[in-house]
Amino acid sequence: MNQESQELSKQQLKSQETKAKIFRAAKHILQKKGYEQLSIKNICEEAGVSNGSFYHHFKTKDDLLSYYIEEQPRINPNLLDMPADADEAKQAIIYVYLNYVHYCQKLGVEFMANYYTPKNQSLNPLIWSERPYPIVTVSDYLRKAIDAGVVSPSVELNDIATDIRMIVIGNVFEWCLKDGKTDFEGNMKRSLEIYLNGLF
Amino acid sequence: MNQESQELSKQQLKSQETKAKIFRAAKHILQKKGYEQLSIKNICEEAGVSNGSFYHHFKTKDDLLSYYIEEQPRINPNLLDMPADADEAKQAIIYVYLNYVHYCQKLGVEFMANYYTPKNQSLNPLIWSERPYPIVTVSDYLRKAIDAGVVSPSVELNDIATDIRMIVIGNVFEWCLKDGKTDFEGNMKRSLEIYLNGLF
Repeated sequence: MNQESQELSKQQLKSQETKAKIFRAAKHILQKKGYEQLSIKNICEEAGVSNGSFYHHFKTKDDLLSYYIEEQPRINPNLLDMPADADEAKQAIIYVYLNYVHYCQKLGVEFMANYYTPKNQSLNPLIWSERPYPIVTVSDYLRKAIDAGVVSPSVELNDIATDIRMIVIGNVFEWCLKDGKTDFEGNMKRSLEIYLNGLF
Repeated sequence: MNQESQELSKQQLKSQETKAKIFRAAKHILQKKGYEQLSIKNICEEAGVSNGSFYHHFKTKDDLLSYYIEEQPRINPNLLDMPADADEAKQAIIYVYLNYVHYCQKLGVEFMANYYTPKNQSLNPLIWSERPYPIVTVSDYLRKAIDAGVVSPSVELNDIATDIRMIVIGNVFEWCLKDGKTDFEGNMKRSLEIYLNGLF
Protein backbone atom coordinates (compact mmCIF):
# COMPACT_ATOMS: atom_id res chain seq x y z
CA MET A 1 0.00 0.00 0.00
CA ASN A 2 1.52 3.37 -0.95
CA GLN A 3 1.48 6.59 1.05
CA GLU A 4 -1.38 8.12 -0.95
CA SER A 5 -3.84 5.26 -0.48
CA GLN A 6 -3.00 5.11 3.25
CA GLU A 7 -3.82 8.82 3.52
CA LEU A 8 -7.09 8.26 1.71
CA SER A 9 -8.17 5.44 3.99
CA LYS A 10 -7.36 7.53 7.07
CA GLN A 11 -9.59 10.29 5.69
CA GLN A 12 -12.31 7.78 4.91
CA LEU A 13 -12.05 6.37 8.41
CA LYS A 14 -12.39 9.83 9.93
CA SER A 15 -15.37 10.55 7.70
CA GLN A 16 -17.04 7.29 8.78
CA GLU A 17 -16.44 8.15 12.42
CA THR A 18 -18.03 11.58 11.99
CA LYS A 19 -21.04 10.02 10.28
CA ALA A 20 -21.38 7.49 13.10
CA LYS A 21 -21.20 10.28 15.71
CA ILE A 22 -23.96 12.19 13.91
CA PHE A 23 -26.10 9.04 13.74
CA ARG A 24 -25.68 8.34 17.44
CA ALA A 25 -26.48 11.95 18.34
CA ALA A 26 -29.64 12.05 16.21
CA LYS A 27 -30.82 8.72 17.62
CA HIS A 28 -30.19 9.94 21.16
CA ILE A 29 -32.17 13.17 20.60
CA LEU A 30 -35.04 11.35 18.89
CA GLN A 31 -35.30 8.83 21.71
CA LYS A 32 -35.05 11.31 24.54
CA LYS A 33 -36.68 14.47 23.19
CA GLY A 34 -38.68 13.66 20.07
CA TYR A 35 -38.77 14.82 16.47
CA GLU A 36 -39.66 18.44 17.26
CA GLN A 37 -36.40 18.89 19.18
CA LEU A 38 -34.29 17.27 16.47
CA SER A 39 -32.58 20.24 14.81
CA ILE A 40 -29.28 20.28 12.95
CA LYS A 41 -27.96 22.67 15.63
CA ASN A 42 -28.89 20.20 18.40
CA ILE A 43 -27.46 17.25 16.48
CA CYS A 44 -24.11 19.04 15.92
CA GLU A 45 -23.89 20.08 19.58
CA GLU A 46 -24.67 16.56 20.80
CA ALA A 47 -22.23 14.97 18.32
CA GLY A 48 -19.49 17.58 18.85
CA VAL A 49 -19.12 18.23 15.11
CA SER A 50 -19.32 21.43 13.06
CA ASN A 51 -22.25 22.55 10.94
CA GLY A 52 -20.08 22.21 7.83
CA SER A 53 -19.25 18.65 8.80
CA PHE A 54 -22.96 17.84 9.01
CA TYR A 55 -23.71 19.28 5.58
CA HIS A 56 -20.73 17.44 4.12
CA HIS A 57 -22.53 14.18 4.91
CA PHE A 58 -26.24 14.99 4.77
CA LYS A 59 -28.47 17.41 2.87
CA THR A 60 -31.11 17.90 5.57
CA LYS A 61 -32.30 16.46 8.87
CA ASP A 62 -34.74 14.17 7.06
CA ASP A 63 -32.00 13.12 4.64
CA LEU A 64 -30.01 11.98 7.69
CA LEU A 65 -32.99 10.02 9.03
CA SER A 66 -33.54 8.28 5.72
CA TYR A 67 -30.05 6.77 6.08
CA TYR A 68 -31.25 4.69 9.02
CA ILE A 69 -32.97 2.59 6.43
CA GLU A 70 -29.57 1.66 4.93
CA GLU A 71 -28.47 0.15 8.18
CA GLN A 72 -31.06 -2.58 8.16
CA PRO A 73 -29.97 -6.17 7.50
CA ARG A 74 -29.98 -7.08 3.83
CA ILE A 75 -32.43 -9.56 2.37
CA ASN A 76 -30.87 -12.76 1.03
CA PRO A 77 -31.27 -12.14 -2.74
CA ASN A 78 -32.04 -15.84 -3.37
CA LEU A 79 -35.27 -15.39 -1.47
CA LEU A 80 -36.28 -12.76 -4.00
CA ASP A 81 -35.64 -14.89 -7.10
CA MET A 82 -38.53 -15.22 -9.52
CA PRO A 83 -41.37 -16.85 -7.52
CA ALA A 84 -42.78 -20.15 -8.76
CA ASP A 85 -46.34 -19.04 -8.01
CA ALA A 86 -48.47 -16.36 -6.32
CA ASP A 87 -48.14 -17.99 -2.92
CA GLU A 88 -44.35 -17.89 -3.05
CA ALA A 89 -44.53 -14.20 -4.03
CA LYS A 90 -46.73 -13.44 -1.01
CA GLN A 91 -44.37 -15.22 1.37
CA ALA A 92 -41.34 -13.35 -0.03
CA ILE A 93 -43.04 -9.97 0.46
CA ILE A 94 -44.00 -10.89 4.02
CA TYR A 95 -40.42 -12.01 4.63
CA VAL A 96 -39.09 -8.56 3.62
CA TYR A 97 -41.35 -6.89 6.17
CA LEU A 98 -40.66 -9.34 8.97
CA ASN A 99 -37.04 -8.36 8.39
CA TYR A 100 -38.14 -4.73 8.80
CA VAL A 101 -40.01 -5.62 12.01
CA HIS A 102 -36.78 -7.01 13.47
CA TYR A 103 -34.94 -3.86 12.46
CA CYS A 104 -37.57 -1.67 14.15
CA GLN A 105 -37.27 -3.79 17.29
CA LYS A 106 -33.50 -3.28 17.19
CA LEU A 107 -33.89 0.52 16.93
CA GLY A 108 -36.35 0.33 19.82
CA VAL A 109 -39.91 1.50 20.34
CA GLU A 110 -38.82 4.86 21.81
CA PHE A 111 -36.82 5.74 18.69
CA MET A 112 -39.56 4.53 16.33
CA ALA A 113 -42.35 6.41 18.18
CA ASN A 114 -40.44 9.62 17.52
CA TYR A 115 -39.46 8.62 13.98
CA TYR A 116 -43.00 7.76 12.83
CA THR A 117 -44.48 11.24 12.71
CA PRO A 118 -46.07 12.53 9.50
CA LYS A 119 -43.62 15.44 9.74
CA ASN A 120 -40.65 13.16 9.13
CA GLN A 121 -40.32 13.61 5.39
CA SER A 122 -37.85 10.75 5.17
CA LEU A 123 -41.00 8.58 5.25
CA ASN A 124 -42.36 10.40 2.18
CA PRO A 125 -41.61 8.41 -1.00
CA LEU A 126 -41.87 11.59 -3.09
CA ILE A 127 -38.52 12.80 -1.79
CA TRP A 128 -36.69 9.49 -1.70
CA SER A 129 -33.34 9.11 -3.30
CA GLU A 130 -31.75 5.78 -4.19
CA ARG A 131 -31.92 3.93 -0.89
CA PRO A 132 -32.70 0.26 -0.29
CA TYR A 133 -36.16 0.93 1.16
CA PRO A 134 -38.14 -2.29 1.67
CA ILE A 135 -40.88 -1.00 -0.63
CA VAL A 136 -38.33 -0.46 -3.44
CA THR A 137 -37.15 -4.07 -3.03
CA VAL A 138 -40.75 -5.30 -3.03
CA SER A 139 -41.80 -3.15 -6.01
CA ASP A 140 -38.88 -4.38 -8.14
CA TYR A 141 -39.69 -7.94 -7.18
CA LEU A 142 -43.39 -7.56 -8.01
CA ARG A 143 -42.59 -5.87 -11.33
CA LYS A 144 -40.52 -8.93 -12.34
CA ALA A 145 -43.25 -11.34 -11.23
CA ILE A 146 -45.97 -9.36 -13.05
CA ASP A 147 -43.91 -9.12 -16.26
CA ALA A 148 -43.32 -12.89 -16.15
CA GLY A 149 -47.05 -13.51 -15.67
CA VAL A 150 -46.51 -15.29 -12.34
CA VAL A 151 -48.93 -12.93 -10.58
CA SER A 152 -51.74 -10.77 -12.01
CA PRO A 153 -52.79 -8.22 -9.41
CA SER A 154 -56.12 -6.45 -9.82
CA VAL A 155 -54.64 -2.92 -9.46
CA GLU A 156 -51.60 -0.91 -10.65
CA LEU A 157 -48.17 -1.58 -9.12
CA ASN A 158 -47.95 2.05 -7.90
CA ASP A 159 -51.18 1.65 -5.97
CA ILE A 160 -50.02 -1.68 -4.52
CA ALA A 161 -46.83 0.01 -3.31
CA THR A 162 -48.89 2.76 -1.65
CA ASP A 163 -51.17 0.21 0.03
CA ILE A 164 -48.27 -1.88 1.33
CA ARG A 165 -46.49 1.23 2.67
CA MET A 166 -49.71 2.31 4.40
CA ILE A 167 -50.25 -1.13 5.97
CA VAL A 168 -46.63 -1.24 7.17
CA ILE A 169 -46.85 2.30 8.61
CA GLY A 170 -50.07 1.29 10.38
CA ASN A 171 -48.31 -1.74 11.86
CA VAL A 172 -45.36 0.27 13.16
CA PHE A 173 -47.72 2.94 14.49
CA GLU A 174 -49.80 0.32 16.35
CA TRP A 175 -46.65 -1.18 17.89
CA CYS A 176 -45.49 2.27 19.05
CA LEU A 177 -48.96 3.26 20.29
CA LYS A 178 -48.99 0.18 22.54
CA ASP A 179 -45.44 0.90 23.65
CA GLY A 180 -44.13 -2.34 22.14
CA LYS A 181 -46.69 -4.50 23.93
CA THR A 182 -48.32 -6.01 20.87
CA ASP A 183 -47.65 -8.94 18.55
CA PHE A 184 -45.73 -6.86 16.00
CA GLU A 185 -44.65 -9.86 13.90
CA GLY A 186 -48.06 -11.54 14.03
CA ASN A 187 -49.90 -8.33 13.09
CA MET A 188 -47.52 -7.62 10.18
CA LYS A 189 -47.74 -11.15 8.80
CA ARG A 190 -51.53 -11.42 9.12
CA SER A 191 -52.46 -7.96 7.75
CA LEU A 192 -50.12 -8.27 4.75
CA GLU A 193 -51.23 -11.83 4.03
CA ILE A 194 -54.93 -10.93 3.99
CA TYR A 195 -54.22 -7.89 1.79
CA LEU A 196 -52.13 -9.95 -0.64
CA ASN A 197 -54.80 -12.66 -0.72
CA GLY A 198 -57.24 -9.99 -1.86
CA LEU A 199 -54.77 -8.77 -4.47
CA PHE A 200 -53.85 -11.91 -6.41
CA MET B 1 -90.52 26.03 32.32
CA ASN B 2 -89.91 26.62 36.05
CA GLN B 3 -87.13 28.61 37.67
CA GLU B 4 -85.06 25.53 38.54
CA SER B 5 -84.93 24.07 35.03
CA GLN B 6 -84.09 27.51 33.62
CA GLU B 7 -81.18 27.73 36.04
CA LEU B 8 -80.07 24.26 35.00
CA SER B 9 -80.11 25.08 31.31
CA LYS B 10 -78.13 28.27 31.91
CA GLN B 11 -75.53 26.21 33.73
CA GLN B 12 -75.55 23.64 30.95
CA LEU B 13 -75.11 26.37 28.37
CA LYS B 14 -72.13 27.81 30.26
CA SER B 15 -70.66 24.33 30.57
CA GLN B 16 -71.04 23.76 26.85
CA GLU B 17 -69.40 27.09 26.10
CA THR B 18 -66.43 26.22 28.31
CA LYS B 19 -66.08 22.86 26.60
CA ALA B 20 -66.19 24.53 23.17
CA LYS B 21 -63.53 27.04 24.27
CA ILE B 22 -61.26 24.20 25.42
CA PHE B 23 -61.79 22.36 22.12
CA ARG B 24 -60.95 25.42 20.06
CA ALA B 25 -57.85 26.13 22.15
CA ALA B 26 -56.55 22.55 21.86
CA LYS B 27 -57.17 22.51 18.12
CA HIS B 28 -55.37 25.82 17.72
CA ILE B 29 -52.32 24.61 19.68
CA LEU B 30 -52.20 21.28 17.82
CA GLN B 31 -52.38 23.03 14.46
CA LYS B 32 -49.85 25.73 15.22
CA LYS B 33 -47.41 24.09 17.62
CA GLY B 34 -47.87 20.31 17.57
CA TYR B 35 -48.61 17.59 20.08
CA GLU B 36 -45.47 18.14 22.18
CA GLN B 37 -46.60 21.68 23.03
CA LEU B 38 -50.14 20.60 23.90
CA SER B 39 -50.18 20.72 27.70
CA ILE B 40 -53.17 21.28 29.97
CA LYS B 41 -51.48 24.48 31.17
CA ASN B 42 -51.19 25.77 27.58
CA ILE B 43 -54.75 24.76 26.75
CA CYS B 44 -56.16 26.58 29.82
CA GLU B 45 -54.14 29.73 29.06
CA GLU B 46 -55.23 29.76 25.41
CA ALA B 47 -58.88 29.07 26.32
CA GLY B 48 -58.93 31.49 29.28
CA VAL B 49 -60.36 28.85 31.63
CA SER B 50 -59.15 27.55 35.00
CA ASN B 51 -57.39 24.25 35.61
CA GLY B 52 -60.37 23.09 37.68
CA SER B 53 -62.67 23.88 34.78
CA PHE B 54 -60.56 21.70 32.49
CA TYR B 55 -60.63 18.73 34.87
CA HIS B 56 -64.38 19.15 35.34
CA HIS B 57 -64.80 18.26 31.67
CA PHE B 58 -61.85 16.00 30.82
CA LYS B 59 -59.70 13.48 32.64
CA THR B 60 -56.48 14.08 30.68
CA LYS B 61 -55.16 15.74 27.56
CA ASP B 62 -55.66 12.54 25.54
CA ASP B 63 -59.18 12.18 26.97
CA LEU B 64 -59.93 15.61 25.52
CA LEU B 65 -58.52 14.60 22.13
CA SER B 66 -60.61 11.45 22.04
CA TYR B 67 -63.73 13.65 22.14
CA TYR B 68 -62.93 14.95 18.65
CA ILE B 69 -64.14 11.59 17.47
CA GLU B 70 -67.62 12.33 18.84
CA GLU B 71 -67.93 15.36 16.64
CA GLN B 72 -67.85 13.41 13.41
CA PRO B 73 -71.04 13.08 11.35
CA ARG B 74 -73.13 10.06 12.30
CA ILE B 75 -73.60 7.11 9.99
CA ASN B 76 -77.15 6.58 8.75
CA PRO B 77 -78.10 3.45 10.77
CA ASN B 78 -80.07 2.00 7.81
CA LEU B 79 -76.80 1.62 5.94
CA LEU B 80 -75.60 -0.65 8.73
CA ASP B 81 -78.60 -2.99 8.73
CA MET B 82 -77.84 -6.69 8.36
CA PRO B 83 -76.06 -7.03 4.99
CA ALA B 84 -77.63 -9.31 2.36
CA ASP B 85 -74.23 -10.71 1.39
CA ALA B 86 -70.46 -10.32 1.85
CA ASP B 87 -70.23 -7.65 -0.83
CA GLU B 88 -72.80 -5.45 0.89
CA ALA B 89 -70.86 -5.83 4.16
CA LYS B 90 -67.63 -4.69 2.46
CA GLN B 91 -69.31 -1.63 0.98
CA ALA B 92 -70.83 -0.67 4.35
CA ILE B 93 -67.42 -0.85 6.07
CA ILE B 94 -65.82 1.25 3.33
CA TYR B 95 -68.68 3.74 3.68
CA VAL B 96 -67.93 4.19 7.40
CA TYR B 97 -64.31 5.06 6.62
CA LEU B 98 -65.10 7.35 3.69
CA ASN B 99 -67.21 9.21 6.25
CA TYR B 100 -64.10 9.35 8.47
CA VAL B 101 -62.01 10.64 5.52
CA HIS B 102 -64.42 13.54 5.11
CA TYR B 103 -64.20 14.28 8.82
CA CYS B 104 -60.38 14.31 8.68
CA GLN B 105 -60.55 16.68 5.71
CA LYS B 106 -62.84 18.95 7.73
CA LEU B 107 -60.39 19.00 10.67
CA GLY B 108 -57.63 19.77 8.18
CA VAL B 109 -54.28 18.19 7.36
CA GLU B 110 -52.37 20.44 9.79
CA PHE B 111 -54.49 19.32 12.73
CA MET B 112 -54.37 15.64 11.72
CA ALA B 113 -50.58 15.65 11.18
CA ASN B 114 -50.20 16.71 14.81
CA TYR B 115 -52.96 14.40 16.04
CA TYR B 116 -51.56 11.23 14.41
CA THR B 117 -48.51 10.70 16.57
CA PRO B 118 -48.00 7.38 18.38
CA LYS B 119 -47.79 9.45 21.59
CA ASN B 120 -51.43 10.46 21.32
CA GLN B 121 -52.96 7.77 23.50
CA SER B 122 -56.47 8.72 22.40
CA LEU B 123 -55.60 6.59 19.34
CA ASN B 124 -54.89 3.59 21.60
CA PRO B 125 -57.93 1.29 21.77
CA LEU B 126 -56.72 -0.09 25.12
CA ILE B 127 -57.69 3.14 26.88
CA TRP B 128 -60.90 3.87 25.01
CA SER B 129 -64.07 4.61 26.85
CA GLU B 130 -67.55 4.43 25.30
CA ARG B 131 -67.14 6.66 22.26
CA PRO B 132 -68.58 6.20 18.78
CA TYR B 133 -65.23 5.30 17.18
CA PRO B 134 -65.62 4.07 13.60
CA ILE B 135 -63.94 0.77 14.53
CA VAL B 136 -66.53 0.17 17.28
CA THR B 137 -69.33 0.73 14.77
CA VAL B 138 -67.64 -1.61 12.29
CA SER B 139 -66.88 -4.31 14.89
CA ASP B 140 -70.49 -4.38 16.11
CA TYR B 141 -71.68 -4.58 12.53
CA LEU B 142 -69.29 -7.41 11.66
CA ARG B 143 -70.22 -9.32 14.83
CA LYS B 144 -73.88 -9.27 13.76
CA ALA B 145 -73.04 -10.36 10.21
CA ILE B 146 -70.76 -13.18 11.44
CA ASP B 147 -73.35 -14.43 13.96
CA ALA B 148 -75.99 -14.48 11.22
CA GLY B 149 -73.62 -16.43 8.95
CA VAL B 150 -73.66 -13.73 6.25
CA VAL B 151 -69.86 -13.48 6.29
CA SER B 152 -67.26 -16.02 7.45
CA PRO B 153 -63.91 -14.27 7.84
CA SER B 154 -60.74 -16.36 8.01
CA VAL B 155 -59.48 -14.72 11.25
CA GLU B 156 -60.83 -13.58 14.64
CA LEU B 157 -62.91 -10.38 14.86
CA ASN B 158 -60.36 -8.82 17.24
CA ASP B 159 -57.60 -9.29 14.69
CA ILE B 160 -59.77 -7.89 11.92
CA ALA B 161 -60.42 -4.80 14.04
CA THR B 162 -56.66 -4.37 14.58
CA ASP B 163 -55.95 -4.76 10.85
CA ILE B 164 -58.63 -2.27 9.84
CA ARG B 165 -57.41 0.26 12.42
CA MET B 166 -53.84 -0.16 11.13
CA ILE B 167 -54.90 0.29 7.50
CA VAL B 168 -56.91 3.40 8.38
CA ILE B 169 -54.02 4.85 10.42
CA GLY B 170 -51.70 4.18 7.46
CA ASN B 171 -54.11 6.01 5.16
CA VAL B 172 -54.34 9.08 7.39
CA PHE B 173 -50.57 9.06 7.88
CA GLU B 174 -49.97 8.92 4.11
CA TRP B 175 -52.37 11.82 3.55
CA CYS B 176 -50.57 13.90 6.24
CA LEU B 177 -47.10 12.91 4.97
CA LYS B 178 -48.01 14.25 1.52
CA ASP B 179 -49.51 17.38 3.08
CA GLY B 180 -52.99 16.55 1.79
CA LYS B 181 -51.81 16.13 -1.80
CA THR B 182 -52.90 12.54 -2.29
CA ASP B 183 -56.10 10.71 -3.25
CA PHE B 184 -57.21 10.15 0.35
CA GLU B 185 -60.64 8.75 -0.62
CA GLY B 186 -59.29 6.57 -3.42
CA ASN B 187 -56.49 5.14 -1.24
CA MET B 188 -58.89 4.39 1.63
CA LYS B 189 -61.46 2.71 -0.62
CA ARG B 190 -58.91 0.63 -2.55
CA SER B 191 -56.78 -0.55 0.38
CA LEU B 192 -59.81 -1.53 2.49
CA GLU B 193 -61.50 -3.22 -0.46
CA ILE B 194 -58.47 -5.38 -1.28
CA TYR B 195 -58.02 -6.28 2.41
CA LEU B 196 -61.72 -7.20 2.77
CA ASN B 197 -61.58 -9.24 -0.46
CA GLY B 198 -58.80 -11.25 1.14
CA LEU B 199 -60.82 -11.65 4.33
CA PHE B 200 -64.17 -13.03 3.09
